[in-house]
Amino acid sequence: MAATRIVAEEAFAGEDKAPRTARGRKTLRKILDAALEEFGERGFSESSIVGITQRADVALGTFYTYFDSKEALFKALVSDMSARVRDHVAPALEAATDTLDGEQRALESYLQFAADHKQVYRIIDEAEFADPDAFEKHYRTTASRIAARLDAGKDKGELVAAGSPLDSEVEAWAIMGMNVFLGLRFAVWGDEDPAEVAQCANRLIRRGLER
Amino acid sequence: MAATRIVAEEAFAGEDKAPRTARGRKTLRKILDAALEEFGERGFSESSIVGITQRADVALGTFYTYFDSKEALFKALVSDMSARVRDHVAPALEAATDTLDGEQRALESYLQFAADHKQVYRIIDEAEFADPDAFEKHYRTTASRIAARLDAGKDKGELVAAGSPLDSEVEAWAIMGMNVFLGLRFAVWGDEDPAEVAQCANRLIRRGLER
Repeated sequence: MAATRIVAEEAFAGEDKAPRTARGRKTLRKILDAALEEFGERGFSESSIVGITQRADVALGTFYTYFDSKEALFKALVSDMSARVRDHVAPALEAATDTLDGEQRALESYLQFAADHKQVYRIIDEAEFADPDAFEKHYRTTASRIAARLDAGKDKGELVAAGSPLDSEVEAWAIMGMNVFLGLRFAVWGDEDPAEVAQCANRLIRRGLER
Repeated sequence: MAATRIVAEEAFAGEDKAPRTARGRKTLRKILDAALEEFGERGFSESSIVGITQRADVALGTFYTYFDSKEALFKALVSDMSARVRDHVAPALEAATDTLDGEQRALESYLQFAADHKQVYRIIDEAEFADPDAFEKHYRTTASRIAARLDAGKDKGELVAAGSPLDSEVEAWAIMGMNVFLGLRFAVWGDEDPAEVAQCANRLIRRGLER
């Protein structure tokens, strides 16, 4: 139910179309799940509102209770996927013994999510063209979360202290890019063991490659 | 002239439309440069062959001497951009004192290229939808080159030896993803000093973040 709550609170932030009842949230969830399938299979420009309402088994009028347009639905879907990834990974982070162990668990959990929801790449990547603001927001938000974790690790003395004001931001974007490409290669295109991939990657960010 | 040679040899590999004269290669270069502008500004679906030939100041018939379709031109452009990035970075790698110094120089050089050719992101990223085979080939080829450099560094004893058969491939995809996202954030969206960004990122892959 976490994902439903996310949409009600985040995808509709400040708008008057957010569902107010449990039934409304369930209908909205059906529309978003159908949108993930439709956009994931057909791409943004070939997808239609009719196609999505048919997959969701809801009336066309119901769609417009929640969204003004295909563009508005797509923006909500990017927000929803972004929040679902975050919520999927959160318990792994909570179980961590230290900052870098957290990054390893987060990556393993992310690889599992990507393997189970391969369409997430198509949705986020197509946002670069269909909704550039949503695309940029997704990555800036994700990188900020990673940078905050690294800063906390530095404050605790677990990580090497930043030598430049850019360090944590560079490190956060580096780790995010690493995770995105490892997901593409080993979870979407391949099916290697997420634990093994996350372990290899963690050795790299923990100790580096220099002998 | 390196880029022109690349197209003649690589984008047309095995096809009979490759230009055979210096004049033909120059015309082809004009078409590819115009295509970069047109696809970069308008996106694949909104771009037209007429728009591209007008930008290039070549006749429509000339276009068909080299390409059968907009799709064929786009494929050649992805191949061309991929090769141009490689050739831009090559001298930086040749000047390196060791493997990880090479990665730092390569990243700095890549960030400069991305800052000067911001459309490269739009072209490569749109290939995921317009030409998925070209998209996959670009990243697999790039990752293979990085993995080969890491393997050479391991053979020379400069880098920690691989503990798992997946190590070099995971490390290569991690470094590629890191470089792509650092370029997006700091060269396309921002304009931070490429040398400083590359130095921060290199500290991460050289020694890791653990204190």
